[in-house]
Amino acid sequence: MKLVKDIGEQGLLQKLQPFCPDGVVGDDAAILDIDPNQKLVVTTDVLVDGVHFSDRTTRAFDVGWRGATANLSDLAAMGATPVGITVGLSLPGDVPVSWVEELYQGLNSCLSQYQTPIVGGDITRSKIITVAITAFGQVAADSIIRRSNARVGDAIIITGYHGLSKAGLELLLNPQLGKNLASEEKEFIIKAHQQPNPRLDLLPTLEAANSDIAIAGMDSSDGLADAISQICRFSGVGAIIDGDNLPIHPILLKLGSYDQATKWTLWGGEDFELVLCMPFPLAATVVNSLGTSAKIIGKTISEAKAIIKYKNKKPDNYRNLSMNNANFQHF
Amino acid sequence: MKLVKDIGEQGLLQKLQPFCPDGVVGDDAAILDIDPNQKLVVTTDVLVDGVHFSDRTTRAFDVGWRGATANLSDLAAMGATPVGITVGLSLPGDVPVSWVEELYQGLNSCLSQYQTPIVGGDITRSKIITVAITAFGQVAADSIIRRSNARVGDAIIITGYHGLSKAGLELLLNPQLGKNLASEEKEFIIKAHQQPNPRLDLLPTLEAANSDIAIAGMDSSDGLADAISQICRFSGVGAIIDGDNLPIHPILLKLGSYDQATKWTLWGGEDFELVLCMPFPLAATVVNSLGTSAKIIGKTISEAKAIIKYKNKKPDNYRNLSMNNANFQHF
Repeated sequence: MKLVKDIGEQGLLQKLQPFCPDGVVGDDAAILDIDPNQKLVVTTDVLVDGVHFSDRTTRAFDVGWRGATANLSDLAAMGATPVGITVGLSLPGDVPVSWVEELYQGLNSCLSQYQTPIVGGDITRSKIITVAITAFGQVAADSIIRRSNARVGDAIIITGYHGLSKAGLELLLNPQLGKNLASEEKEFIIKAHQQPNPRLDLLPTLEAANSDIAIAGMDSSDGLADAISQICRFSGVGAIIDGDNLPIHPILLKLGSYDQATKWTLWGGEDFELVLCMPFPLAATVVNSLGTSAKIIGKTISEAKAIIKYKNKKPDNYRNLSMNNANFQHF
Repeated sequence: MKLVKDIGEQGLLQKLQPFCPDGVVGDDAAILDIDPNQKLVVTTDVLVDGVHFSDRTTRAFDVGWRGATANLSDLAAMGATPVGITVGLSLPGDVPVSWVEELYQGLNSCLSQYQTPIVGGDITRSKIITVAITAFGQVAADSIIRRSNARVGDAIIITGYHGLSKAGLELLLNPQLGKNLASEEKEFIIKAHQQPNPRLDLLPTLEAANSDIAIAGMDSSDGLADAISQICRFSGVGAIIDGDNLPIHPILLKLGSYDQATKWTLWGGEDFELVLCMPFPLAATVVNSLGTSAKIIGKTISEAKAIIKYKNKKPDNYRNLSMNNANFQHF
């Protein structure tokens, strides 16, 4: 008998694809028609104790905050403004009430930055704490950002540094790693891990740009490399990233080698930045409007491969490396 | 330290109330404004292996079917037509792939009766199978059915028999109970348990009735008695149920005493019928349109109590019994 672990997450998703209507699934969130001009955008994330969070690195407040961010980030990645979220919570009876209150405080502290209410949910008993969040947003039909919109020759933009969340996690797990960091630097990366923010702040800029030319994009919740390869796969294009000019945050270099800093930047995950594709002239304007942390890091190509190229610098072992990484299989 | 099990589900919900906006939470589903005329209605249910289903009584197909029905029933209870659902699935790696496929087949078989697609979701690893479903629907602003709409002197309507799902479950657990049942009768109550249907079929009738006078109501997923006491609580009214004329399905009487049949009818749960309140003249018309299984079973009163009254028949021990039942605490 074939088991879930034999075929992995991607294999399972392929098996389930026939149960979902064509064209609705496969992006950061689903798009539903309920009005000719406005689209309803819906996304769901499930967080499981011991898998997505643990007492060692995540307080209940941060489980809530991160859960809110993960879902709002999926809306931001579609160009959608949040309307509300629901929370389906299952938990054992011996969880302290204060843990649940702190979870909701974390959810609300993140959500209230974006005037987004918790509009409902379900609470039930289980042996394992599981937090299932569904978020709904709205977007004008012509402002939708899709993974599948990239064209050959587009610029690839990131809206900020990557690898900081991973760095914060590693520091929490191995405090001695931070021996070269100032205390503000430690706090900065720990906050990047515990209380990241969705890039909803960029929507007005992106909406203004997304009028004549459809912007492609997704969030980098599963890592920068994964976002690039997903956009390529959905758009039927390839990508070349300019390794020599890939922004590496200086703190990452204080925590270890250039090689490790690059690895965390590409595959760290949970930075919740946006990765966008659009023609070069527009990209220059958008990067300018988005502020200093936004950068063009490469371009899309017709060849079906996503690689990072270095001319001068190390690490040699990333030269021409594929963006695909087996670690993204969840099972 | 106070634990979740010390304060129970209701206690926990009270603690979490401050995190949700006033007026949005507390009904079968949340109502969101995204259009002046049409409202978005959202509901979430979490099903946990060993709590809401078990291999002994529920195949994967039925877990899916029942999950779909529970959510669509919450939409029906608001007067809303379904638009789509999302599925957040967490499960161990050693679950057979066929189990997951059958789960989705069950979901889709129920949903396709109402042209409702699965529009997205999340799959993640966990030690326990947990299925978190969120359903979205639409309703015209003046067709919303609310728990809080009941007035003193309203008729209380049920849209069908109760206790059949409970009877099916008991038969599955103790097959010898069915010694007096024909095989069609056994199949009928087992199907009532495994594949109940939401009463979305009633929406056109209710919409037509719900124009001048707002209809109150909810579904009977947690039992008929619970639905009545919830409507009373949210509307600030009481209720008297006419025990002598409470419809008891004949199959229930073949499975045990009149006392047990009454208990299952009032507290069995998961029949997914609607319990509605509206003025008597309108109620007569609506019951007529709804068909033979719909019945007026009592009326709302000003006194703050919900009771069932018998003039003649047994069971004596239900005379003037409160609808409240401690068994509805989930922890």
